[in-house]
Amino acid sequence: MDKTSIYYNNKQKLKNPVLIVGLPGIGTVGSLVGEHLRNTLKAKRLATLYSPHFLHQAIMMKNGGLRLASNRFYSCINEKTGQSIVILVGDMQAGTPEGQYEINERIVRFFKSLGGSTVYTVGGYNISTQYVNKPRVFGVATDKETRENLKKEGVIIGQAAGAVWGSAGLIVAFSKEHGMHGACLMGETGMLEIDANAAKAVLEKLKSMLKLDIDLSSIDKIKAETENLLKEMEKAGGAPGDQQPPPPSQPLPYIR
Amino acid sequence: MDKTSIYYNNKQKLKNPVLIVGLPGIGTVGSLVGEHLRNTLKAKRLATLYSPHFLHQAIMMKNGGLRLASNRFYSCINEKTGQSIVILVGDMQAGTPEGQYEINERIVRFFKSLGGSTVYTVGGYNISTQYVNKPRVFGVATDKETRENLKKEGVIIGQAAGAVWGSAGLIVAFSKEHGMHGACLMGETGMLEIDANAAKAVLEKLKSMLKLDIDLSSIDKIKAETENLLKEMEKAGGAPGDQQPPPPSQPLPYIR
Amino acid sequence: MDKTSIYYNNKQKLKNPVLIVGLPGIGTVGSLVGEHLRNTLKAKRLATLYSPHFLHQAIMMKNGGLRLASNRFYSCINEKTGQSIVILVGDMQAGTPEGQYEINERIVRFFKSLGGSTVYTVGGYNISTQYVNKPRVFGVATDKETRENLKKEGVIIGQAAGAVWGSAGLIVAFSKEHGMHGACLMGETGMLEIDANAAKAVLEKLKSMLKLDIDLSSIDKIKAETENLLKEMEKAGGAPGDQQPPPPSQPLPYIR
Amino acid sequence: MDKTSIYYNNKQKLKNPVLIVGLPGIGTVGSLVGEHLRNTLKAKRLATLYSPHFLHQAIMMKNGGLRLASNRFYSCINEKTGQSIVILVGDMQAGTPEGQYEINERIVRFFKSLGGSTVYTVGGYNISTQYVNKPRVFGVATDKETRENLKKEGVIIGQAAGAVWGSAGLIVAFSKEHGMHGACLMGETGMLEIDANAAKAVLEKLKSMLKLDIDLSSIDKIKAETENLLKEMEKAGGAPGDQQPPPPSQPLPYIR
Repeated sequence: MDKTSIYYNNKQKLKNPVLIVGLPGIGTVGSLVGEHLRNTLKAKRLATLYSPHFLHQAIMMKNGGLRLASNRFYSCINEKTGQSIVILVGDMQAGTPEGQYEINERIVRFFKSLGGSTVYTVGGYNISTQYVNKPRVFGVATDKETRENLKKEGVIIGQAAGAVWGSAGLIVAFSKEHGMHGACLMGETGMLEIDANAAKAVLEKLKSMLKLDIDLSSIDKIKAETENLLKEMEKAGGAPGDQQPPPPSQPLPYIR
Repeated sequence: MDKTSIYYNNKQKLKNPVLIVGLPGIGTVGSLVGEHLRNTLKAKRLATLYSPHFLHQAIMMKNGGLRLASNRFYSCINEKTGQSIVILVGDMQAGTPEGQYEINERIVRFFKSLGGSTVYTVGGYNISTQYVNKPRVFGVATDKETRENLKKEGVIIGQAAGAVWGSAGLIVAFSKEHGMHGACLMGETGMLEIDANAAKAVLEKLKSMLKLDIDLSSIDKIKAETENLLKEMEKAGGAPGDQQPPPPSQPLPYIR
Repeated sequence: MDKTSIYYNNKQKLKNPVLIVGLPGIGTVGSLVGEHLRNTLKAKRLATLYSPHFLHQAIMMKNGGLRLASNRFYSCINEKTGQSIVILVGDMQAGTPEGQYEINERIVRFFKSLGGSTVYTVGGYNISTQYVNKPRVFGVATDKETRENLKKEGVIIGQAAGAVWGSAGLIVAFSKEHGMHGACLMGETGMLEIDANAAKAVLEKLKSMLKLDIDLSSIDKIKAETENLLKEMEKAGGAPGDQQPPPPSQPLPYIR
Repeated sequence: MDKTSIYYNNKQKLKNPVLIVGLPGIGTVGSLVGEHLRNTLKAKRLATLYSPHFLHQAIMMKNGGLRLASNRFYSCINEKTGQSIVILVGDMQAGTPEGQYEINERIVRFFKSLGGSTVYTVGGYNISTQYVNKPRVFGVATDKETRENLKKEGVIIGQAAGAVWGSAGLIVAFSKEHGMHGACLMGETGMLEIDANAAKAVLEKLKSMLKLDIDLSSIDKIKAETENLLKEMEKAGGAPGDQQPPPPSQPLPYIR
């Protein structure tokens, strides 16, 4: 395996597919969103991406299995709109610039070959040193029309500055190069390793924009658990923002 | 040498070969197991793997010689079963993801070309901060049948979580991709740089599973020496787990 | 995108073009010079360079857009001399030796294909721990004739020692290999992150050498602001050189 | 420049050439030896090696010039024996394993193409925390005959252990793979950045072995200066070995 490769698990005809990218990153926001959508939309595995640019780790599975690290495409039909939803989740992102460029352009080319024309990536936007109770959603997008649509949903445009690292940024930037529409939705977060509240804020935007029939109660559970932990820490004398609450005690239903 | 290459030292016909991979890693468990098997089974050099992804070091030999770093395949016949045993040992593993992917897939393809269908890799599983007196052996495997066989031997399946780094993990994961059976056997270890006790625990499993005619007394010697050092350190006031005992004073009979 | 690539935005015929390279680096001197020239000379985008060796970041734009990182060629005609001026600016430089070699030789080959024969790169030369009030300009060049011309302009030749990192150095060195004349002009600077004074010193040399019709008042504004900040810090008790003044409070008119 | 490349400066017929490699490394021993031989033997430039695996620096020259980093082959005739001597010196070594493998195998192939069959690399062997007054010379070699010859010269064989980093090790190891004789001569050194005494010890061995007509007085000057500095530091109260003496106050006659 010299190069990043994508294999079909289950080739299927898609209808005007939209891609939602939820990979590991700041506040685990991307993974939480991606895995939540995959679970609640009961999406089926479409294809698997392997890459020699992932960390040299094999992933242990709960049943005692072992597998290569991967990014995984799932798909389903949005019954309300008839549109195909493609969701990309995964174990990790590449650790080098060269690997990131290769993988992310490969993802964009693959999705274009499926007939896709619109891409949403999800990430966290870390601008606070405290837990964010009412996280805003910031957005950047390839074109004016997409930006206007995001604004109507209450996504904040034109206030974020700097750079978007990794797949969340490069997939959108490559979408532009390949003639597609793309946007990155970033949930405001504050130093938490796993921020379900930021993820929920992004999910609400996606739900509204794409008319998704999803239930947010499982993400609410993780959110509630995190908030309880933070309250207990404050009672115990820790100033909020001073300490990192541990990840939720139960394994996340989403991860892996 | 642009790419990882394998050269035959001595081409020979193998019978239903099984591969045992014992490379440097956590607790030196892999190397201890690999070198012990190579020595006690009097295996002959079959082939040598060189790679530009190894560290840029040449290895000094006891006789004043100098050679490229390598991984080395040895083979022998198990007289009890008639099966060929192939043992892989070496000086080092690659230091980058790309190098690890290249080398480990190369190893799997080479072994498949020898007619092999089963692979065992060996590593340490570091979950203790103290010396482990009765190390358990944890396992992950490519398929249910292999996992059931390991369970019968007392290998613990489905309790390890996370990722297996390097050759121990990737060779098994690639074996699956290439249609072979594979398992990684991990000896429980606790912060020791060279843990002969963990190695012995894995050797006992391999001995039973593969009906190997091997004597464990030389590994017992290293084990005893380490344990004596630990006792002396405790007497001298060091709490167990606080200090790293030095590697055994005599050069290991196994390494290089 | 496996390799560094350059795309034309607007192919045009150039007349005896000279290249001025102003990329990010020590004291931001290169970027300040490049962006100032691009703005005041009203240069038009000629071509864009993308590379998988840039950091894996997408760049957020003020309007809420997102784009790949790039280096960008602009061109204009020097009305006084009739000569084409090509200016190279960009978001970043490659982070690895291999990436730097690839990108910088690619730049030199591209400029040669435009009919160019002379290249000036700009950088900072950091040899002071204090703000430099009257920065000198140091130079290195591919050939004796170019060095003599620089001396006439008051550029100091033969006193700098060591190595020039990145594009500022490699583009000149590759220009020599490809039969072109090249020089690197380094403005003396002292630990400032953004040193408009050093940039101004280099701009004055370029203005004189290339008979450029440019106004230095906008760079004077940044220079004045920085100097005021430094004075306030001194009044407040900070010894000069002890503290880094913050970058100017207003966004730089030049950057991005 | 995707790959390491060697260009002839001056193609010439060589007679039974021997290669001496003196590149930057521990104690600067290799460079001191290489540059001393090049100067005193008045060797002429034969060829130049460039590589994208060197650091992304261009080298400033005393005359105000700028050039790519390189390794440089020089050659001369040993009047006493009629044998061609090829000397390899340079600005730096590659910083990655892949770069080191590429460059060092390239060097070996090039030298073999010149009709060469014997290679000596030079390095420092750092086993002391104090200045070494009477440095020993340790050796490793590709074959028994070469080792026996080194022993006759008083080179210590079979006592060094571990690995030889970089060109000093890999060029010898690749020489073996390509059917040539090779040895690495390591001057004992103790934490000095520039150890002319260790270099002198190696030069004496090479002088004797290859019947070189060389004068060691210029290396004696650097040695004397370093030793004076060390004495002054001891008088001033610094225990020997506690402090690093600065490099000699005059620029080394050898470097660049």
